[in-house]
Amino acid sequence: MEAHEKGYFTEENSIEVVTGRNAKARDERLKSIMEVVTRKLHEAVKEIEPSEKEWFDAIMFLTDTGHMCNEWRQEFILLSDVLGVSMLVDAINNRKPSGASESTVLGPFHVADAPVRHMGDNICLDHKGEDMVVSGRILDTEGNPIDEAVIDVWQANDEGFYDVQQKGIQPDFNLRGVFRTGRDGRYWFRAVKPKYYPIPDDGPVGKMLSALGRHPHRPAHLHYIIKADGFETLTTHIFDPDDPYIDSDAVFGVKESLLAEFRRTEDAARAKEYDFKQAWFWEVEHDFVLAREA
Amino acid sequence: MEAHEKGYFTEENSIEVVTGRNAKARDERLKSIMEVVTRKLHEAVKEIEPSEKEWFDAIMFLTDTGHMCNEWRQEFILLSDVLGVSMLVDAINNRKPSGASESTVLGPFHVADAPVRHMGDNICLDHKGEDMVVSGRILDTEGNPIDEAVIDVWQANDEGFYDVQQKGIQPDFNLRGVFRTGRDGRYWFRAVKPKYYPIPDDGPVGKMLSALGRHPHRPAHLHYIIKADGFETLTTHIFDPDDPYIDSDAVFGVKESLLAEFRRTEDAARAKEYDFKQAWFWEVEHDFVLAREA
Repeated sequence: MEAHEKGYFTEENSIEVVTGRNAKARDERLKSIMEVVTRKLHEAVKEIEPSEKEWFDAIMFLTDTGHMCNEWRQEFILLSDVLGVSMLVDAINNRKPSGASESTVLGPFHVADAPVRHMGDNICLDHKGEDMVVSGRILDTEGNPIDEAVIDVWQANDEGFYDVQQKGIQPDFNLRGVFRTGRDGRYWFRAVKPKYYPIPDDGPVGKMLSALGRHPHRPAHLHYIIKADGFETLTTHIFDPDDPYIDSDAVFGVKESLLAEFRRTEDAARAKEYDFKQAWFWEVEHDFVLAREA
Repeated sequence: MEAHEKGYFTEENSIEVVTGRNAKARDERLKSIMEVVTRKLHEAVKEIEPSEKEWFDAIMFLTDTGHMCNEWRQEFILLSDVLGVSMLVDAINNRKPSGASESTVLGPFHVADAPVRHMGDNICLDHKGEDMVVSGRILDTEGNPIDEAVIDVWQANDEGFYDVQQKGIQPDFNLRGVFRTGRDGRYWFRAVKPKYYPIPDDGPVGKMLSALGRHPHRPAHLHYIIKADGFETLTTHIFDPDDPYIDSDAVFGVKESLLAEFRRTEDAARAKEYDFKQAWFWEVEHDFVLAREA
């Protein structure tokens, strides 16, 4: 038998003994994943040398994290997010050719059936917050505009909440919309300046962040999923570079190339034309470059 | 800010960016544990390169494992057991001096208030199974007998079940007892030959074992906790070397030094003296050597 040939389990041979048991695994991919998981887990235990209490604390942390998960709350995804694992998986699965816009995490607040809007529509249905106009182009890596690109955008409001977190307070589908470009690849819409917000921090992951001296905030951003025939779908954000948390996003979603410019524009005539409350507004211009499908 | 100095998160700098956030952790031990956990986790992800589906499958496995845990069932401990982590933590925390008996995992079936027995008592209260007599000495590393050593023993029955798993079927405290040695350091008691049994395999861990082509069985064993003033407490098993699963314990608890001899003894006179049903019985003689407290 495999384990016997290798001898019984010891501190020294622990990795080989455990992975040696998987000779008859369902498939090679699972076997190779479990080989890496077991090896890295044992390496970690050998380096940490946990006390029995520390081991039990880890067991209870995982148990509490599991118990926090329900239909609406996914505490293990949150754990993956704050440990940078979600961003790493995103990075590995979305290596883009030079010149294409970079991806970042989807996040938990996307809604599949957001309403289709016309270019220029105001997606802020309750008109709360500081008015903002967002525009730009969807381009290929040669700089040509992409016709019929579909832009699914969503964002938090001026207090840092998504509509789905404030049902009955915000209108349904507030600050969401799906836009379709024409031949010029241009898009534009009206909205409000988003605010930073905390990830849910009332569970085990929030306690962990606090013990690590970390805050739970994500800097203000807009979410995008951009699709076009013949191109890789791009799931990304744009961020406000002046946000207080721009250098310490709790889920590590910020990339240099995703920093947009949020320009405070004083222009009474344009503000009036946009039907904005004040004589000034925020202006964001950002192009997205899609990679061609392989 | 820490994260800014190091730049935003990328595949290349992911470990430094995430661990760099823990500068203000509650204490140095937690900080150093999280440094290792994060580093090994990212190393694993980079080596595996999971697809987004594989990542999500892992999230759901952990979630299901958490949901399986309740007052009676600890699926994360089971996961730790079958990945060899529990044995590794045991090994690290119980490095014994040369000549002392080795430890192994406690397991989930210890009961704190087992009855105190007299030497020679039969701990098998329902007399089901093949009779067995167990004896030996509790010694120090110089070979001297230890007076007033307390031996807490428990085992599964001839069908592989502990009393606590079969309340109402087995008598309470069946196959459990606490013995105290005299000056000769000797112990002996009567019992039945234990049988191999599966760890609970109706949950996510059982499904994982099955996907890995692994069986869920533990080879037949007796559990011991042996305490004596001035000595390190020893938590261990002895195993039946002829058990079909002796080389493939699902939780990796077997060590060479824990193999006992289960001798089938034909001796009508002794069998009668022991009040056994048959003219033969199993005989196990095993000494335990305790390490002095540091």
